[in-house]
Amino acid sequence: MKRKAYEYALKQLQKELVGAHRWLQASGKRLLVILEGRDAAGKGGTIKAVTDKMDTRGYRVVALPKPNDREATQWYFQRYVDHLPAAREIVLFDRSWYNRAVVEPVMGFCTDAQHAQFLNDCPTFERMLTDDGILLLKYWLAVDQAEQEERFAERAADPLKRWKLSPVDIAARTEYAEIGRLRDVMLERTHTAYAPWFVVNFNNQRRGRLNLIRHLLDQLPATGVPDRVVELPALPGPPGREKLIDPGFWIDEVF
Amino acid sequence: MKRKAYEYALKQLQKELVGAHRWLQASGKRLLVILEGRDAAGKGGTIKAVTDKMDTRGYRVVALPKPNDREATQWYFQRYVDHLPAAREIVLFDRSWYNRAVVEPVMGFCTDAQHAQFLNDCPTFERMLTDDGILLLKYWLAVDQAEQEERFAERAADPLKRWKLSPVDIAARTEYAEIGRLRDVMLERTHTAYAPWFVVNFNNQRRGRLNLIRHLLDQLPATGVPDRVVELPALPGPPGREKLIDPGFWIDEVF
Amino acid sequence: MKRKAYEYALKQLQKELVGAHRWLQASGKRLLVILEGRDAAGKGGTIKAVTDKMDTRGYRVVALPKPNDREATQWYFQRYVDHLPAAREIVLFDRSWYNRAVVEPVMGFCTDAQHAQFLNDCPTFERMLTDDGILLLKYWLAVDQAEQEERFAERAADPLKRWKLSPVDIAARTEYAEIGRLRDVMLERTHTAYAPWFVVNFNNQRRGRLNLIRHLLDQLPATGVPDRVVELPALPGPPGREKLIDPGFWIDEVF
Amino acid sequence: MKRKAYEYALKQLQKELVGAHRWLQASGKRLLVILEGRDAAGKGGTIKAVTDKMDTRGYRVVALPKPNDREATQWYFQRYVDHLPAAREIVLFDRSWYNRAVVEPVMGFCTDAQHAQFLNDCPTFERMLTDDGILLLKYWLAVDQAEQEERFAERAADPLKRWKLSPVDIAARTEYAEIGRLRDVMLERTHTAYAPWFVVNFNNQRRGRLNLIRHLLDQLPATGVPDRVVELPALPGPPGREKLIDPGFWIDEVF
Repeated sequence: MKRKAYEYALKQLQKELVGAHRWLQASGKRLLVILEGRDAAGKGGTIKAVTDKMDTRGYRVVALPKPNDREATQWYFQRYVDHLPAAREIVLFDRSWYNRAVVEPVMGFCTDAQHAQFLNDCPTFERMLTDDGILLLKYWLAVDQAEQEERFAERAADPLKRWKLSPVDIAARTEYAEIGRLRDVMLERTHTAYAPWFVVNFNNQRRGRLNLIRHLLDQLPATGVPDRVVELPALPGPPGREKLIDPGFWIDEVF
Repeated sequence: MKRKAYEYALKQLQKELVGAHRWLQASGKRLLVILEGRDAAGKGGTIKAVTDKMDTRGYRVVALPKPNDREATQWYFQRYVDHLPAAREIVLFDRSWYNRAVVEPVMGFCTDAQHAQFLNDCPTFERMLTDDGILLLKYWLAVDQAEQEERFAERAADPLKRWKLSPVDIAARTEYAEIGRLRDVMLERTHTAYAPWFVVNFNNQRRGRLNLIRHLLDQLPATGVPDRVVELPALPGPPGREKLIDPGFWIDEVF
Repeated sequence: MKRKAYEYALKQLQKELVGAHRWLQASGKRLLVILEGRDAAGKGGTIKAVTDKMDTRGYRVVALPKPNDREATQWYFQRYVDHLPAAREIVLFDRSWYNRAVVEPVMGFCTDAQHAQFLNDCPTFERMLTDDGILLLKYWLAVDQAEQEERFAERAADPLKRWKLSPVDIAARTEYAEIGRLRDVMLERTHTAYAPWFVVNFNNQRRGRLNLIRHLLDQLPATGVPDRVVELPALPGPPGREKLIDPGFWIDEVF
Repeated sequence: MKRKAYEYALKQLQKELVGAHRWLQASGKRLLVILEGRDAAGKGGTIKAVTDKMDTRGYRVVALPKPNDREATQWYFQRYVDHLPAAREIVLFDRSWYNRAVVEPVMGFCTDAQHAQFLNDCPTFERMLTDDGILLLKYWLAVDQAEQEERFAERAADPLKRWKLSPVDIAARTEYAEIGRLRDVMLERTHTAYAPWFVVNFNNQRRGRLNLIRHLLDQLPATGVPDRVVELPALPGPPGREKLIDPGFWIDEVF
């Protein structure tokens, strides 16, 4: 998909996202979108595409670091609960409580009992959130390993992207199949009518993003909240200039 | 400035920013960058350009809403202090405590006494932060009113940008000169060797961003911390595929 | 019950509480105690008696004010979740999420649907906490209205206690029977093996406190963690005096 | 001083404290009281005496644990700033930023440069708070070593008090004189008209508490805000009883 075509299509979708956000503002609803998927699948780029044109006061992106010592002893869902949306908010989780469904078991960061407990509790937990009125959508960004390997290689070679390659990413490379198995278990055990899972093909990032956003918009109720009209009355006089009393504050222009 | 040339130059600067961030990581230093300026000057776009390629765990963007009722009764600097950088962090303030230097007095959101108090306390406050070792850089993004008006008109016309136009923005249009006067007072009263002000011409957004980032990089000490090398050992077998047991989870592809 | 006898009995129980706390420290367990009951039943005094001799770093008392505007739109349990115990902590809730079981419906602060939803969700929510390993005990402090009225009258008359009499307390006086009805519904619907309710007679405050603490201790596993022995070596020289260079800092002694 | 006399005098003072609190409520003022002093001097007991009868919603006690790894790299005052009073609040600091004046240097928890920096910054910092309108009072609770030793011995012997004896307390026993020297430096360098130090003799705890509270009250402006009168209308019928449908919820009474 060519950049021009992608940017045009994205812009149309972003207009709809802005409209959806107006609907959220008007209705007082809450929207929680969970993005899961393999390393380098495209979660970060998708979040940028979704939020790029949105009112910065209307959404939050939540990407929690690993729990600190104290958090590790708390109720598993506690530190996520802290970030749930209030009225009129969109929250996007870049990874989520589903760490315990896939990443933690494959890396040995939780016990089998904790994994089993999570699979058991999670639908109940999400049921409470959605019964409370939160809209909850969950996406798995799918990428084949050949494509994933290309992206890893690119990250390793590009100084602007190398920080994205964590030791966990590298360790997970030999666990592609096991991650797939855990993903299937997760989908089967935690897909519900009130908090459904959707899988999106991200072998092509641009198509993946567009498809995901289109799908997300289609899950929302009719969003026909008209935009306000902004009037800009004429200025009372000639436009001003940015003129400093002390011109020494200007920095040199090298571009 | 053409898009291609801008993107090329920006990419070079972003490589240096990533290097600067490695230096911050290695040295444990703290960096606080304050962006101030008129509405539509380009603060948000600059922050996106600075952070676009940075490790998301290494920086924070702080854009505080107006204080709530309880905060309004607290020590003026209190809610900003909460967001100061810890070791190895870059914090970018999209507006800052300097609200009280320009926006609040011009809009009548503070008293003259509070304004005077602020101008008096601010250098002392910043002195404590910088004596503590925080690197503090302050930028004013300058834009002439003719250019600003064009951007306002574009925002009013574009559904993707309309949310950026707040009632305060519109009210401030007739106060261009007064804002300039308050800016001069601010520069004169709060520019110090340890927390200097720099003014950047943002009549052209692309040039403004590049000049600001170039300048910012030049304020930092030598940042020659070599990047780590990431090795990707060969996979043990053929690359896996993202194959679901239940293909019903795939969403339709429309792109 | 005489003061001397009460104080002696309480001291014995406090020793056991300190021992129980050592067990919590050693085992890494978490304990959550919920105190509910009518106004003036004795919740605050009981919490003081429980915590009076405890290591101040080992417990927290949580008495949340009414939710602010933003909190009121969040998931009902969210603001309570924030205060759940981490390892080695005792948390005492002076009122709790059970506000929605009794106070809110009787005062018209929630809808019937919200009340019904709460009664439905609460056991599930508590199940998740206790499955996660949190010990959860719930006490209703019972007081007959004649006794309650005496305490109200005392509060109204005593300037040291008048602040305890809130408008809600006074409004609830005519709802004694309805509160009793809602209490019965609450007990029936939310008493579970993993998060049981206990009702304690608080018509006599001293007896009530002692009975509650005795009962609470009896719910905990064997707590025989021996106390450490603290050695105080002899001082190297004669004991020092608090002698100021500038005696002007001493305040006048009037007692 | 006999218990009866102490309790009577304390009660009179507590009535005045409740009145002072009404004045704070009415005026919207903020009060910050810092309690410093040697281990076992009586800080905790004084805070209990001050707050025992106060409206629990009107004050906060702040006793911060040692900073965590991240906090240790932040601006020294940052974690304390978080707890400053808002309008209508009394905040009591059980130890404070003055840790860096006495405890940290004597225990080697800070460098000489950090100690010097603190002594330099502290009056400036407190100046900003008090210029902002916060009332700030600072008390050093003085105790001679012979008395302190008796209290240590009592704590070591009493299972209800042993937790109060920390390794730092014991290590500080040989540093009594050095702590006195640092206290004098602190008093000299950080006593100001706007944030004065007062030293109170706590060799007798009861007298110490009464003298401190008397003095504190005398620092406040006239506090003659009359108490509200609370009316309790007659109940519409005979008083109710706490009668459960299921009497199985009552716990056994053993007292």
